[in-house]
Amino acid sequence: MNSSTLLADLAQIVGAANVLVDPAMIAGNLTEPRGLYAGKALAVVRPGSTAEVSAVVKACASAGVAIVPQGGNTGLVGGQIPDDSGNEIVLSLQRMKRIREIDSLTDTMTVEAGLTLVEAQAAAEGVDRLFPLSLASEGACTIGGNLAANAGGTAVLAYGNARELTVGVEVVLSDGCVVNALSKLRKDNTGYDLKDLFVGSEGTLGIITAAALKLFPRPRSRVTALIGLANPSQALTLFRAARQKLGQNVVTFELMKRIAIEFVLKHGMNVRDPLERPHPWYVLLEAASQVEGGLDEAVEDLLAEALENEWIDDAALAATLEQRADFWRLREEISDLQKPEGGSIKHDVSVPVGVVPEFIEAATAAVEAFMPGARVVPFGHMGDGNIHFNVSQPLGADKAAFLQSWEPMNEIVHAIVARMSGSFSAEHGIGRLKRDLLAKAKDPVAYDVMKRLKAALDPAGLLNPGKML
Amino acid sequence: MNSSTLLADLAQIVGAANVLVDPAMIAGNLTEPRGLYAGKALAVVRPGSTAEVSAVVKACASAGVAIVPQGGNTGLVGGQIPDDSGNEIVLSLQRMKRIREIDSLTDTMTVEAGLTLVEAQAAAEGVDRLFPLSLASEGACTIGGNLAANAGGTAVLAYGNARELTVGVEVVLSDGCVVNALSKLRKDNTGYDLKDLFVGSEGTLGIITAAALKLFPRPRSRVTALIGLANPSQALTLFRAARQKLGQNVVTFELMKRIAIEFVLKHGMNVRDPLERPHPWYVLLEAASQVEGGLDEAVEDLLAEALENEWIDDAALAATLEQRADFWRLREEISDLQKPEGGSIKHDVSVPVGVVPEFIEAATAAVEAFMPGARVVPFGHMGDGNIHFNVSQPLGADKAAFLQSWEPMNEIVHAIVARMSGSFSAEHGIGRLKRDLLAKAKDPVAYDVMKRLKAALDPAGLLNPGKML
Repeated sequence: MNSSTLLADLAQIVGAANVLVDPAMIAGNLTEPRGLYAGKALAVVRPGSTAEVSAVVKACASAGVAIVPQGGNTGLVGGQIPDDSGNEIVLSLQRMKRIREIDSLTDTMTVEAGLTLVEAQAAAEGVDRLFPLSLASEGACTIGGNLAANAGGTAVLAYGNARELTVGVEVVLSDGCVVNALSKLRKDNTGYDLKDLFVGSEGTLGIITAAALKLFPRPRSRVTALIGLANPSQALTLFRAARQKLGQNVVTFELMKRIAIEFVLKHGMNVRDPLERPHPWYVLLEAASQVEGGLDEAVEDLLAEALENEWIDDAALAATLEQRADFWRLREEISDLQKPEGGSIKHDVSVPVGVVPEFIEAATAAVEAFMPGARVVPFGHMGDGNIHFNVSQPLGADKAAFLQSWEPMNEIVHAIVARMSGSFSAEHGIGRLKRDLLAKAKDPVAYDVMKRLKAALDPAGLLNPGKML
Repeated sequence: MNSSTLLADLAQIVGAANVLVDPAMIAGNLTEPRGLYAGKALAVVRPGSTAEVSAVVKACASAGVAIVPQGGNTGLVGGQIPDDSGNEIVLSLQRMKRIREIDSLTDTMTVEAGLTLVEAQAAAEGVDRLFPLSLASEGACTIGGNLAANAGGTAVLAYGNARELTVGVEVVLSDGCVVNALSKLRKDNTGYDLKDLFVGSEGTLGIITAAALKLFPRPRSRVTALIGLANPSQALTLFRAARQKLGQNVVTFELMKRIAIEFVLKHGMNVRDPLERPHPWYVLLEAASQVEGGLDEAVEDLLAEALENEWIDDAALAATLEQRADFWRLREEISDLQKPEGGSIKHDVSVPVGVVPEFIEAATAAVEAFMPGARVVPFGHMGDGNIHFNVSQPLGADKAAFLQSWEPMNEIVHAIVARMSGSFSAEHGIGRLKRDLLAKAKDPVAYDVMKRLKAALDPAGLLNPGKML
């Protein structure tokens, strides 16, 4: 079958208006926002229903044409971008935005893959519930992409990753068959855990078309604190004490080095230094509870104990929603406001929570030895052991020349991560960016199991080829 | 290779003392405690390390001999019992009891599969932590079995099933290779979620030899209430309000029909009716918190509101640890103390939480219509939508004759479960008991995926054959 026959078949399935080939119209689907990955495609196909996805996959399968599923195109590892052969189809889920059901008695909602995260959050709020997944790209990223990548974000400590927030999935397999595992059940031990096999598989084992998601009561009290302290060890001590005193009420525990705050202060609009004087490190702590009363006192006790024991040097509690938003901007805008400082070499890594301070110390020393003047900007989800270990170029360096060091610097940092039994991809996934690294660094038996699973579910290799494996 | 050659090889690997063939010595491994399943075996082999498990599996694989992994032999679906061919090996993990590491900074412990659940709980307590998995057989069941079956229990609401409590696994595959996925990481997106594929696979995809488990701070306050109410609908209203007012502090929400309490009162030692007068239904509610203060008041507010709105008729709070234990006995002893009442036909089912009352009403009516006089004894984890819908024989009926109705009664109840998009195996698994039911009732595409995964990881079908699939 030649490609024009396929395109005609696809137009029959989804309507001609939803088979896009005009380069101007599909340019946005072929590159990702940072411009790190770009590809070509036969067409961008936009099905409107699971039945259409199934039919599209069947047509592609019989034509032997590979499919790259795409949601909001916000992924950071190139997983959603086609290769440059021009032989692949981009399957955009963005028209599939239906909220199929909100069951507030069972605390679940069943939504289609193309719904944006912020729309899903709003749907939950509409029935006085919380859908707690929250990340910087939430305005654009979609539920399908969140699940395909097992997104993390800033509320994992209390609620878990996208995986833990999902109770059921509907998946189109490589032969077009549809797995109906859209269960709303909290407990279901009827066979292998297919849901979790597809979540996090980056579209390489099947295409998630809908999901049943957990809803939570909206917290009735919330406390947000911005804390200044001397070093990550003190932050770990504070985190241990917070878990002890607040348990699963700790929703957010973000660590930031002073330089990250400085970038936000320097390049951001209407931001001000949050504490009286600067501190080497900061923690953004947020706790939430259903129980009225008790939480404020518990956080105040915690901070008082921490000050008394000199684990921390200063702390401010957000007194208003506006102040809370200001604290959060210091964290949320780091990635963006690092850009005016030039090139940044990134590491999305995790280590066991207890060795985060050792990791930061060792990785900082190694990077500074490798490249004197490099500015280490570690920040992120300390409570999950997940640090975004970004490195900004030395002042005055040439950006392109600096970025040439991406791979050797990655190697240095990842070697330290490996020594500490950590992960070189904590929450962003593998995609194209870390595919070769996965092959080298993964436990070889586990990697072989992955290949066997891929062969079992996508024997012709038509689902997102060249990603992950 | 004949079987005596294999046994000699196995004796070389694990020592002759750990290859048991004496019928008297292995009888306990060949039947399960209730006597519902019995089998034969070439031998019971007791490896002492992962390397020995690996070598045993390799030897069995080259001899073409199937392996039945076994932990504490407490499973309720026959998954741990060999068939009656006498050609299988029972691989007992009970000698593998090492606690490899407790990392109280990261809040994980890494233990071997043969450790009993109660030993794991005690190890956590030894470092002032909680390992929250808790179920009736905890004195005998092992971590390996808990993970293979994805055990549930009475703290799932706050902490999740065995699956959610596990961060990493070590698994011996059907060819003897060892998957090292013993990660202690909270976040790790490097490839497919192998951990969750093996958890809940009942030893059919690999043999779990060790696991990294999550630890939690021990709660600093705890409230236990025994509540009398009119019907499951009122219990659902109470549950919704409890989630709203207490959130994830609700650890336990168990529903019990009066007849279950009556069985415990009648056949138990030193038990007394917990409330002033009898009520048609009861809820055992337990809430726990790290935050000191606030919890008692919140539970008292909840119960006051519930009394005022007539959702509930009476409630007692446990004032002492002894009283708490008394309340718990009413729930924990139901299964055992149902036995003196004769035969019991069991259903371990779940439905979406919001339709639990409808399910109980419909299933009760259907069972009573099918068999007048049958005594429906529903109880269980209402907060998870998981009801143990047990049916005691009519008074004076013949036990054996009654038990002949097991399958037709199951069919009636499971049809109602299916209509409500529920599960016919909420937490006990499939094993031999529900294998044929799985083949009939599972979504056919999902079932086909399961078969493909089995073929990919155990092509010769040597791991726990005839279980699940």
